[in-house]
Amino acid sequence: MKAFQDYYPDNVAHCYGCGNLNAHGYRIKTYWEKDETVTRFRPEPFHTAIPGYVYGGLIASLIDCHGTGTAAAAMYRAEGRAMDSEPPFRFVTASLRVDYLKPTPLGGELEIRGRAKEVKGRKVIVEATVYAGGVATARGEIVAVQMPETFLGE
Amino acid sequence: MKAFQDYYPDNVAHCYGCGNLNAHGYRIKTYWEKDETVTRFRPEPFHTAIPGYVYGGLIASLIDCHGTGTAAAAMYRAEGRAMDSEPPFRFVTASLRVDYLKPTPLGGELEIRGRAKEVKGRKVIVEATVYAGGVATARGEIVAVQMPETFLGE
Repeated sequence: MKAFQDYYPDNVAHCYGCGNLNAHGYRIKTYWEKDETVTRFRPEPFHTAIPGYVYGGLIASLIDCHGTGTAAAAMYRAEGRAMDSEPPFRFVTASLRVDYLKPTPLGGELEIRGRAKEVKGRKVIVEATVYAGGVATARGEIVAVQMPETFLGE
Repeated sequence: MKAFQDYYPDNVAHCYGCGNLNAHGYRIKTYWEKDETVTRFRPEPFHTAIPGYVYGGLIASLIDCHGTGTAAAAMYRAEGRAMDSEPPFRFVTASLRVDYLKPTPLGGELEIRGRAKEVKGRKVIVEATVYAGGVATARGEIVAVQMPETFLGE
């Protein structure tokens, strides 16, 4: 099954968080599960904040890229279009908010579950929750806006 | 001149964003400049979002760790204490908000300037702005709370 990020056009697939073509980055993969979007990611041992806990900046990054991916997927759905149809949707973040509910244990796989709360014009609002071992440890919301067509090389 | 982060106790100096002891991390350094706090950081070429622009997750991470550093420094100031006095102050992030004002060009040094907006009890609110070539490209706010003493090994 292809992830949302597998449909990003090559010239905008270099993002450190979600670009297939960034060899140094996280290369997250996000999928639909019914009406929710899900990303699973295993942090490296050095992605630490306090020893034993996941770095908050990584959590913010995962929410961010999970959010832009979800925004694109939700826009395709809203328009009843397949994700490989033209023109491609690709979103950037206008704002990001993260509430750290409790320390996120480092060591296992994190699950980020999100949904598009609002799809309107060129803007999508995505909310997402980060789970470690099934426990919600952070909650975030991003406002994503469609990338200008000039970046997509059209 | 020692940076705020140089005063973090060793057992809480492993943070990917600001810990001296994290060989893989950003190891940011923050200093007072009058009533503002300043961090300067040069992203790597692979810290990209759209090619040519800085990854938003990195920007969020810089604001986050600049914020917790500023919170500690502001708390020492509020108490009229030197940063090497005991007990040490070390903060974690309760919430983070970032507004991306415009794309942040990749290639030069970023400057993050912040100030403590409120210091109250165990909580400090820090606002910060990210500049690229003197132009403000992102603005953030964090709510930082003092780390529980148990983490400081006291």
